[in-house]
Amino acid sequence: MQTKRTDLAVEIRESFPEDDVELKGVILKEKQVKDTGIHISTVQITNQRGAKAMGKPKGHYITVESEELEYMKKEHREILVQTISRYLNLLASREQLKENGVVLVVGLGNREATPDSVGPRVVDQLVITRHLRSEYGESFSKEYSLKTLAAIAPGVTGQTGMEVVEILKGIVSQMKPDLIVVVDALAARSVERLNRTIQITDTGICPGSGVGNHRKALNKETLGVPVVAVGVPTVVDAATIVSDYLEEAFLEEGLSQKELKDFFDQIWESRKKSGKTDLIVTPKNMDEAVQNIADVLSDAINDSFAFFEDS
Amino acid sequence: MQTKRTDLAVEIRESFPEDDVELKGVILKEKQVKDTGIHISTVQITNQRGAKAMGKPKGHYITVESEELEYMKKEHREILVQTISRYLNLLASREQLKENGVVLVVGLGNREATPDSVGPRVVDQLVITRHLRSEYGESFSKEYSLKTLAAIAPGVTGQTGMEVVEILKGIVSQMKPDLIVVVDALAARSVERLNRTIQITDTGICPGSGVGNHRKALNKETLGVPVVAVGVPTVVDAATIVSDYLEEAFLEEGLSQKELKDFFDQIWESRKKSGKTDLIVTPKNMDEAVQNIADVLSDAINDSFAFFEDS
Amino acid sequence: MQTKRTDLAVEIRESFPEDDVELKGVILKEKQVKDTGIHISTVQITNQRGAKAMGKPKGHYITVESEELEYMKKEHREILVQTISRYLNLLASREQLKENGVVLVVGLGNREATPDSVGPRVVDQLVITRHLRSEYGESFSKEYSLKTLAAIAPGVTGQTGMEVVEILKGIVSQMKPDLIVVVDALAARSVERLNRTIQITDTGICPGSGVGNHRKALNKETLGVPVVAVGVPTVVDAATIVSDYLEEAFLEEGLSQKELKDFFDQIWESRKKSGKTDLIVTPKNMDEAVQNIADVLSDAINDSFAFFEDS
Amino acid sequence: MQTKRTDLAVEIRESFPEDDVELKGVILKEKQVKDTGIHISTVQITNQRGAKAMGKPKGHYITVESEELEYMKKEHREILVQTISRYLNLLASREQLKENGVVLVVGLGNREATPDSVGPRVVDQLVITRHLRSEYGESFSKEYSLKTLAAIAPGVTGQTGMEVVEILKGIVSQMKPDLIVVVDALAARSVERLNRTIQITDTGICPGSGVGNHRKALNKETLGVPVVAVGVPTVVDAATIVSDYLEEAFLEEGLSQKELKDFFDQIWESRKKSGKTDLIVTPKNMDEAVQNIADVLSDAINDSFAFFEDS
Repeated sequence: MQTKRTDLAVEIRESFPEDDVELKGVILKEKQVKDTGIHISTVQITNQRGAKAMGKPKGHYITVESEELEYMKKEHREILVQTISRYLNLLASREQLKENGVVLVVGLGNREATPDSVGPRVVDQLVITRHLRSEYGESFSKEYSLKTLAAIAPGVTGQTGMEVVEILKGIVSQMKPDLIVVVDALAARSVERLNRTIQITDTGICPGSGVGNHRKALNKETLGVPVVAVGVPTVVDAATIVSDYLEEAFLEEGLSQKELKDFFDQIWESRKKSGKTDLIVTPKNMDEAVQNIADVLSDAINDSFAFFEDS
Repeated sequence: MQTKRTDLAVEIRESFPEDDVELKGVILKEKQVKDTGIHISTVQITNQRGAKAMGKPKGHYITVESEELEYMKKEHREILVQTISRYLNLLASREQLKENGVVLVVGLGNREATPDSVGPRVVDQLVITRHLRSEYGESFSKEYSLKTLAAIAPGVTGQTGMEVVEILKGIVSQMKPDLIVVVDALAARSVERLNRTIQITDTGICPGSGVGNHRKALNKETLGVPVVAVGVPTVVDAATIVSDYLEEAFLEEGLSQKELKDFFDQIWESRKKSGKTDLIVTPKNMDEAVQNIADVLSDAINDSFAFFEDS
Repeated sequence: MQTKRTDLAVEIRESFPEDDVELKGVILKEKQVKDTGIHISTVQITNQRGAKAMGKPKGHYITVESEELEYMKKEHREILVQTISRYLNLLASREQLKENGVVLVVGLGNREATPDSVGPRVVDQLVITRHLRSEYGESFSKEYSLKTLAAIAPGVTGQTGMEVVEILKGIVSQMKPDLIVVVDALAARSVERLNRTIQITDTGICPGSGVGNHRKALNKETLGVPVVAVGVPTVVDAATIVSDYLEEAFLEEGLSQKELKDFFDQIWESRKKSGKTDLIVTPKNMDEAVQNIADVLSDAINDSFAFFEDS
Repeated sequence: MQTKRTDLAVEIRESFPEDDVELKGVILKEKQVKDTGIHISTVQITNQRGAKAMGKPKGHYITVESEELEYMKKEHREILVQTISRYLNLLASREQLKENGVVLVVGLGNREATPDSVGPRVVDQLVITRHLRSEYGESFSKEYSLKTLAAIAPGVTGQTGMEVVEILKGIVSQMKPDLIVVVDALAARSVERLNRTIQITDTGICPGSGVGNHRKALNKETLGVPVVAVGVPTVVDAATIVSDYLEEAFLEEGLSQKELKDFFDQIWESRKKSGKTDLIVTPKNMDEAVQNIADVLSDAINDSFAFFEDS
């Protein structure tokens, strides 16, 4: 079912038919934060069989979902930020990040293309602290409880002429971070998940895979440093939404799963032939929605990696 | 066939079955500018029968289409600007605009929502001249061949709390323009038309109709001044693209027009039930594409209404 | 001492020599909000003699100053917002604004020129409610404790070809607000006041007077509705800063006030001759500083005019 | 005369008293492009004596000045672009850049701070070609006469936590450019030079030196690759403008150069004491002026390094 493109592990997991539920090598756990509309799913891929079935590398994929941010209460937003921050800390400590370790946040994507701008927008709002130690001294950093945070928004290949992995390898060789946190826009399968979902994973990222470009992966193998990837679904592929509408219509008509699949494959083929593969579906208020989720995410990253907790 | 939402008269005309070609009250003419990729369609609705069939008021609807602006040659872009400018002048003179008449350009839409920002972006790039006469004197205006151009981007109701028609009535009562040119983003039926098509009409406009909100019309009846409307398709409704894909798939399967229509209606109903009516389809490079078409359109309006032709 | 241009009543008051302290017709009161760095000055001009001495119309001029917003604690920022909101409510109720009255906020200035963009930025962040009553009904407005707020950022004359007073007269005639709140950037005399000072007055405003353009006034006489003006100093005139530096240097040299004044007048003349009158002085981080003060001000206006207080 | 901060070699040269004209080790040549308002000055520092006198490293400093871009004729603007492009090519070929060499443009500065954003704005408008060869093949690059251009806008230390030299060393080690072109905002001494002057030099650059921060130099020694630096004066230091006004006033009073110098030094000291060292002077229309010069400069760089000349 190729037409339903998604970068969210939880959506891939959902797409398996009922009788595959006992899928070997893939463990799914779900959790609610009571009375807040916040929902957490953890997909763990434990072996190669699971990795093959899911089309994703082994590791943990944590998905935090909330209501639409635009209408969220302040208290619930605060809990959302804390929840995301907690999972970031969890994955970071699993990767052996020490309290005084250097974290480099990489905001992927094109700041001039709204649905792809979530990474640069997050970087714009981080509290950068790495340079303060040398500028103002150790005691300054202590007084303000500063950790060591650096960040860059390197731009996309069309803007730089360079692969992101090329730029990052160079920077890593110079400044030697202990952990890299990569932030990127993703494609989701369901429009309900746009701009209110965050996926955190310890497997790194394949930039641009969310919207059709396969660049070289960013992970421990390519960069030599553990990579935690934070992804935000901001678009749905146009072919996916066609499937969505069709499913609703067809299910009422009583078509079988097999018939549906054949039909989708046929659309996908016809679409490839006509070259219409770069259309995306977004909500009308996308500019605002992307800014809202970038605000939440930068708050969470600041909480995790810019400051020590008050004690 | 409600699901195929479009604000372009030429697309409504195209959607009629072959045997309706002799449609009474609707005249269609087509023209190419040789070797430039520029195509001009004129739909004239001459009587009430045509107006009812088309779902549009009587009047002229001129559609100028080009290749993708991103890849257009400089010379062709220049011809495109001149073509649009010529049709603007044509409709303006039909509305009795004199050489020294005052033109007010109104850029509708929300500058904070990229696909809806084409109106404000055009206004930002106009050469405003109305105030120069009083500031620098008649001879200054003569020396630089200045006409009398004013403009405003009033914002959308969600930003102002006011209907656009309310704001414009007030401004018109004060500054008494001889012609209003309204610029707005439209919805198209076909993704091929996005960001490379301009519709010019002497019938005024119904702001927001392109994306689902019916506000009060802006035309000679409501404003007391002739209104030329310039529309730029920047989005396709998500339901429309579903129909597009389906048509391709179904036609290969040999379904009849009637069966197709029933199927679309069914999708539309299911979609309304689930509340998913505010999704739009755009190209990935929308930010850039919207700016390119706004550049062309502001050049054309400046040529028509800011300056007298060099002689 | 023309060279020291300021739009702040409190700075004009400060500039009078010591022995004028008993200035008839001008009452100055000062107040601190304890332990917050917030300082409030109220200048009241009670008669024509005071108006002439100050070069400002009769009325109240409230100036709220704080520390640099960039480094302000959250709690202090909250108190600052409440303080501004309280004075807005105070002046509004003096102008007989009823609880259910309609307030129109006008964001003056050019959103494309950073130091002049504070008005449009404030408007962008208001919670606009006027249209919700008709869209969702009275009970909706009640449930969410909504007052009736509308807003517009009309642009500057160079962008519209129209005087602001012309645009506003038209809008007022249509939507009939009970109170207008005008927000504009000002010029200050002291760089210490930039982007951390707000002046609120019940005398209306003379747009552009802060940076050299005298347009028609916006006040009860011209608009027929009470006008509360909120001004934010974002620039210092270049001539003013020259005076500042000189004063420091000269005072150490022991020059008299008279000698200083003569010297300033001479600089001013030489400057006018050379045509250098459109230079401004700003802090390097102006973009950020202007956004910070716009955030504070929009929060305060929302508290005052978008929502009823929780009870 | 410390108070007159400038990054322009030509301004330093101008500041020497008349009787130093035969300054050893500094050669000044001047040239006009007839009837265009374009003026070119070349300062060549040939030995250590000249370097010490000028406070600048040995090398060539070419300054291209024009009228205000806002009012420049199209033909003159085109000649300006060609002039800058020609000098870029000249310095590049002196640095042994071959026709098929890889050029990396680095846009220094903070895109969120208007006067410091000229570097990132230039990068945004370059025609990036380095990746096209591998994506579309050699024949594609040949057909469109493409050279090999890459670019990055790395951000400032406050945004990244890293020194620019640190980031660039890493990138250079990975992508191995043959020439680096660094674009940065400068401080000028004279307000007349703002946003209409471009300095091109083969000596590299000291980022931030224009506005008070001394970071590590970017030149052949630190990066291992020849560095051509392009600088655009966008601000005048506030202390400098004080000197400017004073000079006019004092000269009329008949003060000697020595007396003037003493006075300036005194102002500078008093200013340092009061901590007012981060104020800048700009024209009111800075946002527009900075964009105009960035447009010119990106056109010139594209002409030099993105495309082979048509033949």
